Amino acid sequence: MQTLVEGILSRHSVRKFTGDPINENDLNTIVKAGMAAPSAMNIQPWSFIIITDKGILNNLCKALPYAKMLDKAGAAIIVCGDSKEANWVVDCAAATENILLAAHALGYGAVWTAVYKYESRIEPVRKECKIPNDIIPLNVIPIGIAVDKNVKPIDKYNESKIHKNIW
Amino acid sequence: MQTLVEGILSRHSVRKFTGDPINENDLNTIVKAGMAAPSAMNIQPWSFIIITDKGILNNLCKALPYAKMLDKAGAAIIVCGDSKEANWVVDCAAATENILLAAHALGYGAVWTAVYKYESRIEPVRKECKIPNDIIPLNVIPIGIAVDKNVKPIDKYNESKIHKNIW
Repeated sequence: MQTLVEGILSRHSVRKFTGDPINENDLNTIVKAGMAAPSAMNIQPWSFIIITDKGILNNLCKALPYAKMLDKAGAAIIVCGDSKEANWVVDCAAATENILLAAHALGYGAVWTAVYKYESRIEPVRKECKIPNDIIPLNVIPIGIAVDKNVKPIDKYNESKIHKNIW
Repeated sequence: MQTLVEGILSRHSVRKFTGDPINENDLNTIVKAGMAAPSAMNIQPWSFIIITDKGILNNLCKALPYAKMLDKAGAAIIVCGDSKEANWVVDCAAATENILLAAHALGYGAVWTAVYKYESRIEPVRKECKIPNDIIPLNVIPIGIAVDKNVKPIDKYNESKIHKNIW
């Protein structure tokens, strides 16, 4: 099981994709990993939109200033939260981390591009993907084959961020 | 790398601990996994308090209604966020998921007990661990040896939560 830790430590954001498609079974495995996240009182306030349609990927690319890699992504996943549930943001963030890790595990690159809490991003995503008003897209996660597979993650370990027993 | 996905799917919340201590190197590995999470603009707005002091664990146990397993935990980690940073909540939630997965990978059980956004929990945690006012404890994560190591996670896969291209 040690490779789980290795996988966590070797995951990093990937923003340059080859444009190749993603295997559909892999996309389902990635979303399944998202649903394995914990949630407050096990409410599971999440839904997932798997986008492989090139037209929609391109429209989102045009609408979102920090998701310009969508035009070369093989797919994207939108993690959506039920805004009626108090803890939807943290629950959907945990699901997102599982999705990023699972994409990495399966040999893909991915990157979390924030949508919530930016109204100027939420509205075009809602419109493009016909998301109901009480559901909020937390992010758009472009997924693809990394152009450069040899990139190593930066080591973000910082001992000054660790406190023992008290701050 | 497939075991990364297996690890994600087999992780589950553990709430009954033997009371045995946790190896200190393992606690550092677990926190290191937390720091490997992505964060908005790589700001890394997190800090981690590793608690092994039995007196503090017991005081938190008394103060927190949903963290009563702390008296049998070998340790706890508090994931704290810098409230001056806009995206601290989602960033710290992603770090928390990495912590839960790494604890699982190393053979421990753990559970996310929410602190934020409950003022009645934030204040006693802040007081007990001397957390500065601009820092907010997102959660307390008790970690320990599971009493029952044979528990299998419930399968939370739910096809109705998946949408293709549009909602």
